[in-house]
Amino acid sequence: MDDIEKRLPRRDPLPAIGAQRRNLLGGLVGGTTTLIAGRTLAADLHNFPPLPSWSQQLGRPVATNPYGKPSPFEANIIRRLSPGLTTTRESTIAFTPLQNLFGTITPNGLHFERSHGGLPEVDPYQHRLILHGLVKNPKIYTMEDLLRFPAVSRVHFLECGANTGMEWNNVAVPTVQFTHGMLSCAEYTGVLLSTLLEDVGFDRKAAKFVLAEGADAAGLTRTIPLEFALNDAMIVYGQNGEMLRPENGYPVRLFVPGVQGVSSVKWLRRLELGDQPWHTREETMHYADLMPDGKSQQFTWIQEAKSVITSPSGGQRLLDKRGYYQITGLAWSGRGRIKRVDVSTDGGRSWHPAQLQEPITSKALTRFRTDWVWDGVPALLQSRCIDDTGYVQPKLRQLREGRGTRSIYHNNAIQTWRIATDGGVHNVQV
Amino acid sequence: MDDIEKRLPRRDPLPAIGAQRRNLLGGLVGGTTTLIAGRTLAADLHNFPPLPSWSQQLGRPVATNPYGKPSPFEANIIRRLSPGLTTTRESTIAFTPLQNLFGTITPNGLHFERSHGGLPEVDPYQHRLILHGLVKNPKIYTMEDLLRFPAVSRVHFLECGANTGMEWNNVAVPTVQFTHGMLSCAEYTGVLLSTLLEDVGFDRKAAKFVLAEGADAAGLTRTIPLEFALNDAMIVYGQNGEMLRPENGYPVRLFVPGVQGVSSVKWLRRLELGDQPWHTREETMHYADLMPDGKSQQFTWIQEAKSVITSPSGGQRLLDKRGYYQITGLAWSGRGRIKRVDVSTDGGRSWHPAQLQEPITSKALTRFRTDWVWDGVPALLQSRCIDDTGYVQPKLRQLREGRGTRSIYHNNAIQTWRIATDGGVHNVQV
Repeated sequence: MDDIEKRLPRRDPLPAIGAQRRNLLGGLVGGTTTLIAGRTLAADLHNFPPLPSWSQQLGRPVATNPYGKPSPFEANIIRRLSPGLTTTRESTIAFTPLQNLFGTITPNGLHFERSHGGLPEVDPYQHRLILHGLVKNPKIYTMEDLLRFPAVSRVHFLECGANTGMEWNNVAVPTVQFTHGMLSCAEYTGVLLSTLLEDVGFDRKAAKFVLAEGADAAGLTRTIPLEFALNDAMIVYGQNGEMLRPENGYPVRLFVPGVQGVSSVKWLRRLELGDQPWHTREETMHYADLMPDGKSQQFTWIQEAKSVITSPSGGQRLLDKRGYYQITGLAWSGRGRIKRVDVSTDGGRSWHPAQLQEPITSKALTRFRTDWVWDGVPALLQSRCIDDTGYVQPKLRQLREGRGTRSIYHNNAIQTWRIATDGGVHNVQV
Repeated sequence: MDDIEKRLPRRDPLPAIGAQRRNLLGGLVGGTTTLIAGRTLAADLHNFPPLPSWSQQLGRPVATNPYGKPSPFEANIIRRLSPGLTTTRESTIAFTPLQNLFGTITPNGLHFERSHGGLPEVDPYQHRLILHGLVKNPKIYTMEDLLRFPAVSRVHFLECGANTGMEWNNVAVPTVQFTHGMLSCAEYTGVLLSTLLEDVGFDRKAAKFVLAEGADAAGLTRTIPLEFALNDAMIVYGQNGEMLRPENGYPVRLFVPGVQGVSSVKWLRRLELGDQPWHTREETMHYADLMPDGKSQQFTWIQEAKSVITSPSGGQRLLDKRGYYQITGLAWSGRGRIKRVDVSTDGGRSWHPAQLQEPITSKALTRFRTDWVWDGVPALLQSRCIDDTGYVQPKLRQLREGRGTRSIYHNNAIQTWRIATDGGVHNVQV
């Protein structure tokens, strides 16, 4: 930080002004309606640093943007496509810039975006949700119907099953936006799926699975077990206080907390209850893990406990060659609450616990932070989380022992960032 | 809700299709890599309701909007200016549409906006924060400096001291957007002010107050007691995960949890420590309450416990003349956590407790909800909250007994919405 003295035209103005103000105003303390214009005194202060142009003229009128936007200076903080990841832009992923985000809530404009057939522009007045199959009274709901049901709001993370998929195979993309950016967290509002299932009188004996189908061109379909539907799955229309964004399923999506993102079918058009899983395209061809023996592991629903340091992270640079840095990142578990996050700066030889941001809630992102003084020599930064089931986030080596290197999905391994002597931060595998 | 049968071209297709699908796929359950195309079977279903156009063609490419926007169908959900409230648009208020929001988080695009000299377009690379007065080492901080300090993130409400001001005098504006919409809630990230005060070595004996000055054309200045500064006041740069919006103080603002909004000075340029309050224009001319005896009550910092039903609320209409409605709203207290919210549908003769959305945190909005079956006769809806100090939200009559009707600020009275026999909802005072 700059010492104010170095920038001042005279040596000791501040205490003098402070004292002067104190003397001038002292006699008025306790008065109630007297108006004191602060500008005269402030004028002296405005000599250092110079009063900027925006302090010298009226600004823009209020509510010029009745729906606000970020500052033009933040134009670089955007969702990004990984070059070459897919061959069409209708079926690809836009990653959340985790390295630029604070806290745990992802602003709606930066929520990661995954589509299989492009982004449909759904008219909420025309949209219908069909609920049928092993139910007593199959029904078609309008959005108005859905908005009339008892609502709940819950903060949860959403993570694509393919998040960190590139790291299975030593590809090591450069930034945390591309290693972990298929991850967001929001306050979701909607109707518990169990409420709708009661409404149609589902078959309590025979029904075991729910099929969800989207209204996009892909007609994306996924099966979830009935136990998820009856536990905490939601029919969601609200995200961070407002209606869902078009790319996140407007006007309504399924949301299955803790489960890989593809199961939270967007633009939800149809729910069917059945007694067996459907084995649709997106649960056989995709979102299945190719194992070392050539077989595929299917229906890995839960996103296991995982964490990543978001700052410092790949592509960033430590500005001072030595000195204080706050190490910060995110931890989450599809099974419940994060109990503890440890941070290592020596590649996992030693660990110490990080501070966790309160409140820590189930199946939500948890922000961790810890103080660090960099001594200027290369360092290997890692984080490792433990959830309230006692599960410990594994090393990549441990994951590979069981699952090989040909998976795309469900990589929850510890991430390593290497700090070089020039302060540059790099994605490495150790 | 519509019974699906009424819309179907044939009588009983759904169980048949369900059974057919079960038979077709049953043999494949347990398979791992087999691809099942769901579209053929789905085609039958697509006869009812007709497959919409957006399901029959590819949608827009992913990340067409690298920073996303709401659906065009939501274009009416915006901040609004109250007509005639002020004579210039540089010094006025844009209200948050509380009637349209879910949960507790206000999306950044809809955070209420109050400005005294227009919205300055601050260059974060040029912006400086001066910290001086009764301190050992006065300093000037760049944004880079501020971002390097240990950060914290906390969810808090922000309410203008003038919120609900029109209701003191029976004006009864029509909607909750205008009665209570100077209210928002976000996850704020920044540096604890106490951290900066330690950094400059504040005078622990003499310093009693902190003056904050904005970089806007108004040079808005407000005093806060040092105890707030040392408790939970923050120097905030992040709001709901991203940098502050321009209208909310980009790139940095003071944030004083639980205290009237004007004290959370935006575009923060200067902090000065002193031994007495400053009595600046915005704490004498404005934000002081004119009492019945003609004197002004100054320095009412804390926003006392308050609640309001946001749905049903003024200007809305109950669609069914009788039937189920969820009554929902918001409660908050500048002194801590909300302990309980009671709802009345008979103008306060009887009360019953509402459900509170978890987690309930200190100085944050708390969403409450309760079930209600309207019997079609006129009703008077009210909510009343109690915070963890035991303070009970007062009736307007109780507030007026002590403070008359000439105040503008600090009206935390119980709000009443009248349901008419036609389902219309109206702002009334009882």
